[in-house]
Amino acid sequence: MTDLLLREDIGPVARLTLNSPASLNALSDAMLAALSDAFARLAQDRTIRVVILRGAGKAFCAGHDLKEMQAARSQPDKGAAYFLDLFTRCGAVMQAIPALPQPVIAEVHGIATAAGCQLVATCDMAVAAEGTRFGVNGVNIGLFCSTPMVALSRNVPAKVAFEMLTTGAFIDTTRARDVGLINRAVPPADLESTTLALAQTVAAKLSAAVKIGKRAFYDQQGLSLAEAYAQTAAVMQENMLWRDTAEGIQAFLEKRAPDWQA
Amino acid sequence: MTDLLLREDIGPVARLTLNSPASLNALSDAMLAALSDAFARLAQDRTIRVVILRGAGKAFCAGHDLKEMQAARSQPDKGAAYFLDLFTRCGAVMQAIPALPQPVIAEVHGIATAAGCQLVATCDMAVAAEGTRFGVNGVNIGLFCSTPMVALSRNVPAKVAFEMLTTGAFIDTTRARDVGLINRAVPPADLESTTLALAQTVAAKLSAAVKIGKRAFYDQQGLSLAEAYAQTAAVMQENMLWRDTAEGIQAFLEKRAPDWQA
Amino acid sequence: MTDLLLREDIGPVARLTLNSPASLNALSDAMLAALSDAFARLAQDRTIRVVILRGAGKAFCAGHDLKEMQAARSQPDKGAAYFLDLFTRCGAVMQAIPALPQPVIAEVHGIATAAGCQLVATCDMAVAAEGTRFGVNGVNIGLFCSTPMVALSRNVPAKVAFEMLTTGAFIDTTRARDVGLINRAVPPADLESTTLALAQTVAAKLSAAVKIGKRAFYDQQGLSLAEAYAQTAAVMQENMLWRDTAEGIQAFLEKRAPDWQA
Repeated sequence: MTDLLLREDIGPVARLTLNSPASLNALSDAMLAALSDAFARLAQDRTIRVVILRGAGKAFCAGHDLKEMQAARSQPDKGAAYFLDLFTRCGAVMQAIPALPQPVIAEVHGIATAAGCQLVATCDMAVAAEGTRFGVNGVNIGLFCSTPMVALSRNVPAKVAFEMLTTGAFIDTTRARDVGLINRAVPPADLESTTLALAQTVAAKLSAAVKIGKRAFYDQQGLSLAEAYAQTAAVMQENMLWRDTAEGIQAFLEKRAPDWQA
Repeated sequence: MTDLLLREDIGPVARLTLNSPASLNALSDAMLAALSDAFARLAQDRTIRVVILRGAGKAFCAGHDLKEMQAARSQPDKGAAYFLDLFTRCGAVMQAIPALPQPVIAEVHGIATAAGCQLVATCDMAVAAEGTRFGVNGVNIGLFCSTPMVALSRNVPAKVAFEMLTTGAFIDTTRARDVGLINRAVPPADLESTTLALAQTVAAKLSAAVKIGKRAFYDQQGLSLAEAYAQTAAVMQENMLWRDTAEGIQAFLEKRAPDWQA
Repeated sequence: MTDLLLREDIGPVARLTLNSPASLNALSDAMLAALSDAFARLAQDRTIRVVILRGAGKAFCAGHDLKEMQAARSQPDKGAAYFLDLFTRCGAVMQAIPALPQPVIAEVHGIATAAGCQLVATCDMAVAAEGTRFGVNGVNIGLFCSTPMVALSRNVPAKVAFEMLTTGAFIDTTRARDVGLINRAVPPADLESTTLALAQTVAAKLSAAVKIGKRAFYDQQGLSLAEAYAQTAAVMQENMLWRDTAEGIQAFLEKRAPDWQA
């Protein structure tokens, strides 16, 4: 890991910390590369069961690195190739989160704006400190948050997303939870412990079941009911045939703790 | 009907009661067959306009019959064929609910877990007694609720579904209503009467209109706006050409009760 | 404009007022034609950045013109051709709203029922006066609100839509906001000013960014994550290459107001 993205493993929980507080953890080229690399390593890491993503300093993440983007305008094509590549790379990082075998929990504080709000929407779950503000405010500087919209509009009702995108206005944690952008809000002092406890709760489950379930969750989205049931029936069958699941069910029936190997 | 699934007709309302309180109304092979049979009969029953589904004893439904499932492991294939068949049959029962001509209302109390929570999500509407707890908690025993997820994730925001599925945690009726899993929560003493009143309200509408509307509701889901409008414009045209609809509109314009034949 | 649909331009905001209070602003053939015409003109009008849609008199809009529909039954085909044409024309008006380059805000008071509730659901955003009631109550007269359902079911959770459609019951502004049908509710005395302020907030943004963003918002709905990101990455690239966006970002970095040409 570079200093730009810290990784700390707490038992089966990997905690990634965006570590560029001076830029409000902007998603610079280097930060996107670090995230891409970290996710690629985690995808292969069988010791890690849950991932937490958070930010150092005053904010979770304030989106793209605008200075870096402006600098690209000096290129002969005025940055055209760079911009398409940047948004494609950023989209790939976002898509790596649902594709990761482990659940990813955003631990959010301060502000989560533009691509930072997209990160929150993209994570499988999100816990936020009360006082956090969420926004897709690129429209304020003439750059509509079209890619953040992809994640946001798959999390919150249409009219809520449209208002946030076209007004650039922030929402608070109460509204964020009500509309489905975050799972819960807690006092700032409890943010780290609450997020870790949630991660540890999930990490204590049978890892293979969480993994097959997370994949099935995203695979069945958007399918017809018949297709989704056909696909998940096969997932349930596979899940049933594992030794640890047989033991888990037997232990439940015998009212004892399971003796899981994995 | 077998004793496993009771049916009581209250005028145009059929009330089905899962009647295996000792198993918390588990969806055993026999229970799934009884439900499948009951739905097939109701689909042909022109006297019934609304269906209520509820459970006898302490709980609405606690999901699959784990003992029966464990017993299948003694088969030469370790239950592989049985499990796929089981989840396929269960998925067919779930899909029979939106396919039924009559609206189906879940009357929920106690707990609704795993495939029991799936049943709630699958019904067209749901009324619950305050104090009811909802969960897709298979992950706790190593069996991720992949098929219940299909119904749940089509009812509630993505992050809410993901948290329920990976933590196995329960939600209460307030949260269930806020996230869209149920229509309303009432004091336990009012559960039966409130659900029946809702059923009778719907049963008092023009039956053919409710039937064509329910079918259109599910048919247009997931279509593009243009396709959905083309499809429903034809449904509205058909609806307009019925004698009873002509009478219903005329009665409204003349401020009198309609004289409906159906 | 005819007297049936008033248009008042307040700087860059066009305010359309359904002006048939005696019919509760029914969507008659003439009203649909006036709306269709108004939207076609607005689509070409580069001076207008935001559209407000409201109703004169006691109600926002009570849906179709039932008297006109009943009159069509005297035709040789009993109105069959007229009805299909009517619902097709109405669907085209509804689809013209997301297709319009400018955001459209519903300013709602009194009642919004049937196709009137569909209009609210169809607008990009909606502000309502406290006390407003929303319903898709065609089922009460034997005409299921199948076309309003298209818009409604893309705005609110499935069970909420199903209940409204099959019971014909109204919901109030608190519930409407909670379920995503409106963005906010305000005291009646503040309705006009609040809606106008929201419109002016959006109108103050870079017009081209709002326009490209609104189009992208609807284009990416229902796409897979990979398709949606590919499409919006190209939108962001285009957006980045505009002169005014370069200036907007630079101004932000220099902590000054942007000097926008558009």
